[in-house]
Amino acid sequence: MSSKSAKKVGHPLSELLRVPAGPVDLARFDPAATPGYPGEGKSDSAEETEALGAELSDLQEVLYADGRSEPETASRVLVVLQGMDTSGKGGVIRHAIGLVDPQGTQLRAFKAPTAEERAHDFLWRIRQALPGPGMIGIFDRSHYEDVLVVRVESLVPEAEWSRRYAQINEFEAELVAGGTRVIKCMLNVSFEEQRRRLAERLAHPSKYWKYNPADVDARLKWPAYQEAYAAALELCNTVDAPWHVIPSDHKWYRNWAVAELLRETLAGMNLQWPPAEFDVATEQARVEAS
Amino acid sequence: MSSKSAKKVGHPLSELLRVPAGPVDLARFDPAATPGYPGEGKSDSAEETEALGAELSDLQEVLYADGRSEPETASRVLVVLQGMDTSGKGGVIRHAIGLVDPQGTQLRAFKAPTAEERAHDFLWRIRQALPGPGMIGIFDRSHYEDVLVVRVESLVPEAEWSRRYAQINEFEAELVAGGTRVIKCMLNVSFEEQRRRLAERLAHPSKYWKYNPADVDARLKWPAYQEAYAAALELCNTVDAPWHVIPSDHKWYRNWAVAELLRETLAGMNLQWPPAEFDVATEQARVEAS
Repeated sequence: MSSKSAKKVGHPLSELLRVPAGPVDLARFDPAATPGYPGEGKSDSAEETEALGAELSDLQEVLYADGRSEPETASRVLVVLQGMDTSGKGGVIRHAIGLVDPQGTQLRAFKAPTAEERAHDFLWRIRQALPGPGMIGIFDRSHYEDVLVVRVESLVPEAEWSRRYAQINEFEAELVAGGTRVIKCMLNVSFEEQRRRLAERLAHPSKYWKYNPADVDARLKWPAYQEAYAAALELCNTVDAPWHVIPSDHKWYRNWAVAELLRETLAGMNLQWPPAEFDVATEQARVEAS
Repeated sequence: MSSKSAKKVGHPLSELLRVPAGPVDLARFDPAATPGYPGEGKSDSAEETEALGAELSDLQEVLYADGRSEPETASRVLVVLQGMDTSGKGGVIRHAIGLVDPQGTQLRAFKAPTAEERAHDFLWRIRQALPGPGMIGIFDRSHYEDVLVVRVESLVPEAEWSRRYAQINEFEAELVAGGTRVIKCMLNVSFEEQRRRLAERLAHPSKYWKYNPADVDARLKWPAYQEAYAAALELCNTVDAPWHVIPSDHKWYRNWAVAELLRETLAGMNLQWPPAEFDVATEQARVEAS
């Protein structure tokens, strides 16, 4: 199946959204941009996403089939979603990851660590949640919280969190070497758009449950968070596991972009249907006779 | 949002598909029937399912919101899928459960028990996989395997498996009393259609991975399996957790039917958005000022 987007000639989206090497200034990333989008805009985004979904779904099935047939060698994919409150981690999961067969995805949301989790090093709970063979794992927040909220709120001494960037790079390199493709997405929402979205949650009783007064507390530390994000995007921007900044003021673009990054990754893996582990002619005769 | 199907007046699907009390003869259930389907047939099933999906998705969000806001009291839903090979448990998960936000579902496939699982009673691994508050759990196979394959293959003595029907009833009654709605679905595929589907898997290299020679071994014991299914459908058909037989020779009907059963269940729960746990006016002022 070919998607509308696939017909478009141009740079892969991963190139367009990849964070360039070197120092990062988040102010230079436009949260309202729509780079690489093949259609007109919001008006045709449902159509574009549907086309993309069909191809994504086909590719994912091959990955999954590999995982079932050859678990020792099958690849895995890990999508890491980070972003300020209201940037749309949940929306991406619902609308982009929701395009894929739920049997092939492993979702994990990381909250403030439990007492048991705090008793181990910060990567302990992460390692336990890694995707299995042939699976697409999705992290809603991740080990990056340990250099974001932990840094901003000084939850551990600087000597400790500052060591974590290198530890993360080592951990991710190990993951990639073991056959996991890592897609890191920072959902970049503007300060103004975040205010609008928070206000919207307070305007509709059906959205109260999404609102948390602590979100405003974090908002009041916006510059510190931007600085912490910039550090993570700079220091953990490796060749094996680069960072992408997803402009997220337009929800339709954000959802399309993450789905397209996933599609590109799968398409680039050169996935093949696993061979039969039985004699096809023999089995055909058995089925026929049954 | 209202679905096309919701406009249709008639008996709820759960009534149409519910197994009547008393002895069960599976031969009296037509695997090619399409009871309660509101449209024309396969031709409009994508449209019907999409309409249903929108309503399902809205209802599921309220359930999920409850689970997040009031985990101690929030309801849960458990969909149990059973059926012979090729009956379409995977297809239902992909196309019916796939309509719902993946953040609100917990999927669990039960394979042959591991050594650790066998060291415990048969419900041990089931209890560990139950859905959390506000979640929709889906069991791809379940505790019923312990009175199906286990009975047919005599994996434990009859004295042991025959006690399990009452144990299952007690377990499910406890679940329901604790606030979980249990939707049990037997995907009923015909002997002829199973042969066609197995042959199809052998006709396309992209489907080899779905084929397992053991499926034909089980097929050769079809009457014994039908008998075991009939016993489970009769002996575990309680008022709290009744069985439904889903005609499954038409994939489009099967997928629609399970999605509609889920929609009906959610619609019948009278779910309400949780109230704000903060002072709305105060928070509006804080957001405004930020």
